Amino acid sequence: MAAREGGEWAHPYVPKDLKLPGYVPCFLSQKDIVVPYLGTSLLLVSFIWIFSGRSKLTKSDRLLMCWWAFTGLTHIILEGYFAFSPEFYKKKTPHYLAEVWKEYSKGDSRYVGRDAGIVTVEGITAVLEVGSFYYRYAIATRKPYSYILQFAVCLGQLYGCLVYFITAFLEGDNFATSPFYYWVYYIGANGWWVVIPLLIANRSWKKITAAIQAEKKIKTG
Amino acid sequence: MAAREGGEWAHPYVPKDLKLPGYVPCFLSQKDIVVPYLGTSLLLVSFIWIFSGRSKLTKSDRLLMCWWAFTGLTHIILEGYFAFSPEFYKKKTPHYLAEVWKEYSKGDSRYVGRDAGIVTVEGITAVLEVGSFYYRYAIATRKPYSYILQFAVCLGQLYGCLVYFITAFLEGDNFATSPFYYWVYYIGANGWWVVIPLLIANRSWKKITAAIQAEKKIKTG
Repeated sequence: MAAREGGEWAHPYVPKDLKLPGYVPCFLSQKDIVVPYLGTSLLLVSFIWIFSGRSKLTKSDRLLMCWWAFTGLTHIILEGYFAFSPEFYKKKTPHYLAEVWKEYSKGDSRYVGRDAGIVTVEGITAVLEVGSFYYRYAIATRKPYSYILQFAVCLGQLYGCLVYFITAFLEGDNFATSPFYYWVYYIGANGWWVVIPLLIANRSWKKITAAIQAEKKIKTG
Repeated sequence: MAAREGGEWAHPYVPKDLKLPGYVPCFLSQKDIVVPYLGTSLLLVSFIWIFSGRSKLTKSDRLLMCWWAFTGLTHIILEGYFAFSPEFYKKKTPHYLAEVWKEYSKGDSRYVGRDAGIVTVEGITAVLEVGSFYYRYAIATRKPYSYILQFAVCLGQLYGCLVYFITAFLEGDNFATSPFYYWVYYIGANGWWVVIPLLIANRSWKKITAAIQAEKKIKTG
């Protein structure tokens, strides 16, 4: 653990002058935080992939169900906890979710610094993703609104990422403890939520446009 | 004009301790700022309404074209200027667009204070609305992607409003010079961009769902 200065623990975050009264350092190592998260996610995704193999769904629909399960649980549990726990970095006993955010803040100190833009975007995303169980249900039962629903949520994720990256850029882009944390946590972990929503939104757009075009032909021809 | 204090003009914005070095007060009165804006908008909307009356478009499609023209020009000109003019409040000669933002900041001082979240949201919105000419074209020529395009832009506007209002709330909701400016500028002027996108998004959702359902019936029946 870092040395105490005047009764307070020194924090590892950048900018160095960020004030975090009552900060308590991480109890868990990076490995102890990251491995359970990735392991649980892999288990969940495998389970849904195998289970959905028994249905008549196409491979892409099955992949989409895995994605919604993963992103949904990640955001509801992790971001949901963050949005409503302003004092997570003061916890004096180990708490897995608080540890996750203390660790992640090494890539973006605006989390531990409780930046209003971050809390807003994370709060909106957590609420959007509460619907993820429902999106999987809509895909599995092939509801007619399945595409537009997925399209809407993907746009929400993309808008959130835009706000996330642009505000950091405007504020000087100096919130990571080191280049490692910048590229792996800040860019690496968030990049998935740019690439995958873009792919899904593009697919939904094509499906919807095709349906509207087909409907027109029937009406006019 | 307000009295000068130590070589600087005193600003009318809240919070009072907001630092605006080089601030120059409004040259135009509220009436001289608001009347040209509303007048031009009314002219534009009337022109499109009358002109589109000659086409075979339905009334709701004509209304939508008026709305996209209005919101498009508002955001491209006003918000576009704001996003890329960080020093608008220092202008020493009258400039209509700078005056608009000095006046509007009485309802929300985060504009004149150059809050990163505000600049981000306004920048994204300005870019989104650059497409507004295109959206009108898509409606007028009844492109198959007209609904999903409008749906996407409406969600962008709604997400922007959410970020706008929630960040203000989290930061103490104390950015208006008086209750008049709070209700008329901050709530009143922005409320339209919550209500109308909600209506349009709802309409697009229904049209798209109906088309997908119709396509399914053909495939299965």
